[in-house]
Amino acid sequence: MDVKDYVIKQLGRTKNKKYEQYVVSRIIHLLNDFDVKFVTQQYVARPEGRALTDLFFPQIRLHIEVDEEHHKANIEDDKVREADIVNATNHEVMRVDVSKSLDDINNDIDLIVKAIRNKVDTLKSQNSFIAWDLDAEFSSDTYINKGYIDVMDNVAFRTIKEACNCFGHNYSGYQKASAPHPNDNEVMLWFPKLYPNNDWNNNISNDEEIITERNEDNEKAREHVISHKSNKEKHKHQRIVFARVKGNLGDVLYRFRGLYKLSLLDSNEEAGLVWKRVASKVKTYPRG
Amino acid sequence: MDVKDYVIKQLGRTKNKKYEQYVVSRIIHLLNDFDVKFVTQQYVARPEGRALTDLFFPQIRLHIEVDEEHHKANIEDDKVREADIVNATNHEVMRVDVSKSLDDINNDIDLIVKAIRNKVDTLKSQNSFIAWDLDAEFSSDTYINKGYIDVMDNVAFRTIKEACNCFGHNYSGYQKASAPHPNDNEVMLWFPKLYPNNDWNNNISNDEEIITERNEDNEKAREHVISHKSNKEKHKHQRIVFARVKGNLGDVLYRFRGLYKLSLLDSNEEAGLVWKRVASKVKTYPRG
Repeated sequence: MDVKDYVIKQLGRTKNKKYEQYVVSRIIHLLNDFDVKFVTQQYVARPEGRALTDLFFPQIRLHIEVDEEHHKANIEDDKVREADIVNATNHEVMRVDVSKSLDDINNDIDLIVKAIRNKVDTLKSQNSFIAWDLDAEFSSDTYINKGYIDVMDNVAFRTIKEACNCFGHNYSGYQKASAPHPNDNEVMLWFPKLYPNNDWNNNISNDEEIITERNEDNEKAREHVISHKSNKEKHKHQRIVFARVKGNLGDVLYRFRGLYKLSLLDSNEEAGLVWKRVASKVKTYPRG
Repeated sequence: MDVKDYVIKQLGRTKNKKYEQYVVSRIIHLLNDFDVKFVTQQYVARPEGRALTDLFFPQIRLHIEVDEEHHKANIEDDKVREADIVNATNHEVMRVDVSKSLDDINNDIDLIVKAIRNKVDTLKSQNSFIAWDLDAEFSSDTYINKGYIDVMDNVAFRTIKEACNCFGHNYSGYQKASAPHPNDNEVMLWFPKLYPNNDWNNNISNDEEIITERNEDNEKAREHVISHKSNKEKHKHQRIVFARVKGNLGDVLYRFRGLYKLSLLDSNEEAGLVWKRVASKVKTYPRG
């Protein structure tokens, strides 16, 4: 997928609301800056629950909502559970009230486009704007060179291999759901499905701070908890987590969630293993 | 329907081709001039046959085509027969080659937008640009004040009444498919379906120069021709024609086609009545 493909596909998805396509395409065309990444219909997790925003600019953490009076967001749980959900706490939301006249809507969009440009310019003046690059954003090299991976940067990889290679591996292919950390013996790299799947009843909280992991079978859940609590050497009590999700174009992504630590206090055969986030930014290492 | 509704609906229809929505919405947003009317997916008649153009600007008689390598226009005859078909002979067509890179596509669109502005400016400098006005364009007053109706101006009405009132009538409602011309005793106003309907096998040529009108029943067709040829007083041998069509948003329109004269030479029981266009511009009259 190149930028052209990406842009066409993203803009082609905007059909939920009557005015969504107009507003979204107008913002993208008037902004006219494909160094600025955008995502349409982005699932977000907020303290008050999950939602779908109409347009998301990850680099400046800005969401645009098309406010239609009679539109009710219809978020089906079984559709959303695999979805790439971005934590939007502290993200900004700008709204377009489409009950106004076309001229007024267009004026509001002009102001939004100006605001986006200002935000980008501010980042640029702080030397912290990284132009959108579809290849670089999914490459381990980008994050090895950067020295870290930060949740704030909305990091996701297309393959487990690329994620592993950020920590000292040099895999040309890797399929397992976990891998050792070559540079930290106490940490494991983990690529879980954080929703109920097969025999596992996994979950991540909306604020991404707590992951629970429990087998649906009570006996297995008990063994699982006991084994992990008792054998720190084998199981590791810290995990760098990349959640396996479906991107909004249907592609598989491994979305960075942070470094999680097993809570011995909260983990038990009822709750399963409870992992708590201890860092949202982790160090990267050159390839071994 | 107001401008806002119209614009949203027109842009919402562009989904035939992969790149169509991108190109069309980009042109409309960058042009950013709602004094310029646009129509998406406009059926056109050309000497070489019927076609569908992706974007049409009636005031400047310009069509935009999104050229997709593998796209074959699929024009189903039974869908198109009721459609509002614009004669596009001598209209200009600009093409966007979407096999190019996104940057090159965007550059081409910039050039098209510039060309559109130039054409509008040229009309303005000649005092012949009429800003798009959804209400005015469907009002008889507009054409009474103008003094004439011209095929070149892409004139259509939403009701038979409005069309009639351009010639001296003052109807508040009118439903029949023909009406007398209050100011020209030799002419009738006619609002036919120019495609096979009920018992009538009507047709208009692609260049709009010839209309044929024939009953499907041979005996009735014979009587119809004889009656018309023999009784000029009753039937009138000249007709100002507004074809009943379906606009591209599903609305009924009466599209002005011109003044037609019965060809006594060509009309016979085989061919039916044959009407030939003698003027594409007719005089209008104040309300009686």
